[in-house]
Parts: sequence; structure tokens; C-alpha cells
Amino acid sequence: MNMDIAAVNALPYEDFVNIFGNVVEKCPIITAAVWSRRPFVNFTALEAAISEFIDELPESGKEGILRCHPDLAGRDLHGGTLTRESREEQAGAGMDALNSVEASNMARLNEEYKERFGFPFVICARMTDKANILRQLSERCRNERAVERARGIEEVKKICRLRLQALVVSEASNKL
Amino acid sequence: MNMDIAAVNALPYEDFVNIFGNVVEKCPIITAAVWSRRPFVNFTALEAAISEFIDELPESGKEGILRCHPDLAGRDLHGGTLTRESREEQAGAGMDALNSVEASNMARLNEEYKERFGFPFVICARMTDKANILRQLSERCRNERAVERARGIEEVKKICRLRLQALVVSEASNKL
Repeated sequence: MNMDIAAVNALPYEDFVNIFGNVVEKCPIITAAVWSRRPFVNFTALEAAISEFIDELPESGKEGILRCHPDLAGRDLHGGTLTRESREEQAGAGMDALNSVEASNMARLNEEYKERFGFPFVICARMTDKANILRQLSERCRNERAVERARGIEEVKKICRLRLQALVVSEASNKL
Repeated sequence: MNMDIAAVNALPYEDFVNIFGNVVEKCPIITAAVWSRRPFVNFTALEAAISEFIDELPESGKEGILRCHPDLAGRDLHGGTLTRESREEQAGAGMDALNSVEASNMARLNEEYKERFGFPFVICARMTDKANILRQLSERCRNERAVERARGIEEVKKICRLRLQALVVSEASNKL
């Protein structure tokens, strides 16, 4: 069902941005920039181009990416204003089904994290579960700001990879 | 009615991004990055921080910004999917009231422009009118790509300034 890389490379920029614009949450500029780097030889090259664009941003730009992410189990989830991708990822990790103790812990730790760092806690929810998310959030609150900025960006890249894999044939799944 | 700069500086990043996230069309990452630079001494400092962030992007990133912009009188206008800011700006310049000759000229020139440059024609619609937009579109189609990329970014900054002025008290309007 996914597109192969030749089909990706043939897309006009408008279609490319429509399809891939949210592989980094609310940052269509990244997708739109990376279109300049086509043709991509394979999935890995497309993913690498996105990753390199992110790496070349100033530190403020990396913080900007993090600030475009919603809180886990936060007001966007409760208000129905998550992007489709985030909604599915948060639901998959049980963020829409916290008991009241978990919900209040999550809310308190999210606020503590944002107060300390000035950006939200970002984690690839699809690769973990509720208990681990709460544990990581609690632990990562104690990191240094620069460490946590880099850690958040690593998670952004994991999220990006999974979102891309839902759209494009990757080498791992391509048994030629 | 607009916020003064002290109120802007007091905003948590989530409110800052909610309020200013579209001063550069569909690029909340820029606003979110610039929050790292607060406090801003005045309107001009806020505008300058955005402008500097844009200038420091690689050329592909500048093209990415342009590709986040809709066509003038294009499918987003006709389909009702423009952002509020773009809809008001395009309507103000008469883009929603083209006669059939103007509409077909606009469509043809937009396609020609995008085919040539790989990004859309961007112009600060509030600072011009229908006749001038058509003339500029026709003329700018003949520029070199690098010239036109820089020209598009100049227009992005003009659009940004007007969107900011609708939200924040600027020195020009601040008779202290």
C-alpha cells in the first residue's frame, strides 16, 4: 500500500508537502525544504535528508521543533485538537485511558518538565507504554537542558521514522 | 487592543506559539524557536529575531518556507482551506473576485512560476492590488531562481511584519 521511492520522487512539491508535511509534528517547512534534495535513492536517504536538516538548525530551531509538539495526555488530547498522527500515537500508548492517579501524575510532571526546560517532554509513544512513559518523564526532568534538548530531538527522529514507514516502502520491508 | 511587548514577553511558549505561530505562514517552528530569544525590548526586536532566524536557514529551508505558502487565487482559496490570515489578505487584494480572464491568467502564470522555480509565487498582497499582482507575477517568472528565492523571502518578511502589527503594539503606533 505504501509508495515506493520512485513515486515519492515524482511528486510535485505540493503533493509531497501534503503527504509528508507532518512527519515532524507541525513542521511542514522541514518536509518542504527536503523536497529540494530529491531524488532520494531509497527510504533511508529520505529519512537522512530530514535528519540532516534538523541537525543543521541552530539550537533555538531544535527547541522550536520540540515546542511544536503537544503534551502527552494534555489539553490537545482532551480538547480533540491533536493532529491525526499524534492522536493515534498517544492512544496506542494508552494516554487516552489514564486512571486518575496516572492522569494527575502526568499533568504534574509535564508542568514540571516544561517549567524547567521551556519545551515539552517528547517521547516516541509507539515504541513504549504508559508505565515507561511516566518513568521516563520523571527521570528526564532531572537532566540538564542541553542533554534533554538532544534527547527530545532523538525522539522526534524516531517518531519521524515511524510516520515515514507508514507512507513509504522502506528497505527493511522491501524484499527485492 | 494589541498586546504590548511586556505582555508578549510574559507569555509561556504554548501561548506564544498559539498567538504568533502563523506570522510566517504554516511555520510555527519559527515562532517557537524565537521564543528562546525573549525578552524582546520592543516590536522591532521581535520582528528582527524572526527575520534573523529565517536568514540563518540554509537555502533549502528558505525554499521550504516559500513552499508552505498557498497559491494566490489557487485551490486553497477555492477549497476554503486557506489559513485565516491568508484568506483575509487574498480577499483584501481582490483574489477572491477575479473575472474569468484574470482567473485564467493567474492560474496559468502560477503554474509557469512553480514549474520554473519549484516554489510558489509569494507577494505581500496587503501592500498591493490585483493588477499589480498579475504584473509582478508575469515579470518575476523571468528572474533567476536565486533572485526569486530571495525576493520571495523579502515578501514573507513583509507579510510577517503586517501580521505582527495586527497583534503587538509597534513603535510606529506607540506614542509614548
